Amino acid sequence: MSRLDSFIRRLQAQRACLDHAAGLIAGLDGIVLELGLGNGRTYDHLRSLFPSREIYVCERQVAAHPACVPPPGRLILGDMRETLPAARSRLAGRVALAHLDAGSGDDEANRNLAAALTPLILPLLCEGAVLVSDPAIASADLDPLPLPDGVRPGRYHLYRRLSPIRS
Amino acid sequence: MSRLDSFIRRLQAQRACLDHAAGLIAGLDGIVLELGLGNGRTYDHLRSLFPSREIYVCERQVAAHPACVPPPGRLILGDMRETLPAARSRLAGRVALAHLDAGSGDDEANRNLAAALTPLILPLLCEGAVLVSDPAIASADLDPLPLPDGVRPGRYHLYRRLSPIRS
Repeated sequence: MSRLDSFIRRLQAQRACLDHAAGLIAGLDGIVLELGLGNGRTYDHLRSLFPSREIYVCERQVAAHPACVPPPGRLILGDMRETLPAARSRLAGRVALAHLDAGSGDDEANRNLAAALTPLILPLLCEGAVLVSDPAIASADLDPLPLPDGVRPGRYHLYRRLSPIRS
Repeated sequence: MSRLDSFIRRLQAQRACLDHAAGLIAGLDGIVLELGLGNGRTYDHLRSLFPSREIYVCERQVAAHPACVPPPGRLILGDMRETLPAARSRLAGRVALAHLDAGSGDDEANRNLAAALTPLILPLLCEGAVLVSDPAIASADLDPLPLPDGVRPGRYHLYRRLSPIRS
């Protein structure tokens, strides 16, 4: 399989997981948190899935297509290891869906970042919230969920926040 | 349709057109020319399609994954408006398949670049060569070819070099 094949499958898996997660949180109040804006394509997809929810976006430095940049009040600029703790008073327990795609091509770096961010993300999630993630996450507070049809195990990841949260 | 949907369709169309073009040139001797390396995913796909052909790659500045960088002798570094005329003595009439994906998100800029590059690409193509292009190209020396199944007209483009070439 070429890297083009693999990239297409990853994007299809990402989209399938987000579409599936939208159904999972349909009955749950709460905001959406996009961890990493990148080029803004996934943010645009989240906007189309959740026209009525507030969508907050964390990003170190905006480099997205101008049509895919969130309004200033919804943009959390800086290193997520610093901005997520700072946003805790504002967002704690309010997030119904979080999506983590660190976006680097380095799998090990992505897993390490996910491990560092998980304890910072958990307190923001409401009860029953869903976390969609490119890297796998190991946490006693997260329950792995079945993937939608067509997504090979390990290609993308879905978790449900367990309740009560222990962190 | 979100930008994520649209991006996935564009990549699927690109892959379908390259796979189809591989069949079209199966009986034709000649090298492959990738106009724009980008992250190297498409180059990697071309390598998998054409293990026995020389693949030359034009790129202004290499920013691809290290595993997707062509060997130095096959890399034509610099602005294609300057490097293609310079490569003419070496590549004239030798290219069986060229692929043009300028890769910027700006459709008008992509079409303008394609128009500027077309007269520089044409002399490199052998008789019957196929040009696969993201932007549409209008040239009396190129015959538009039918797209493979599943690719919407206008999403990607296939051309056959007419013979005799007039430029």
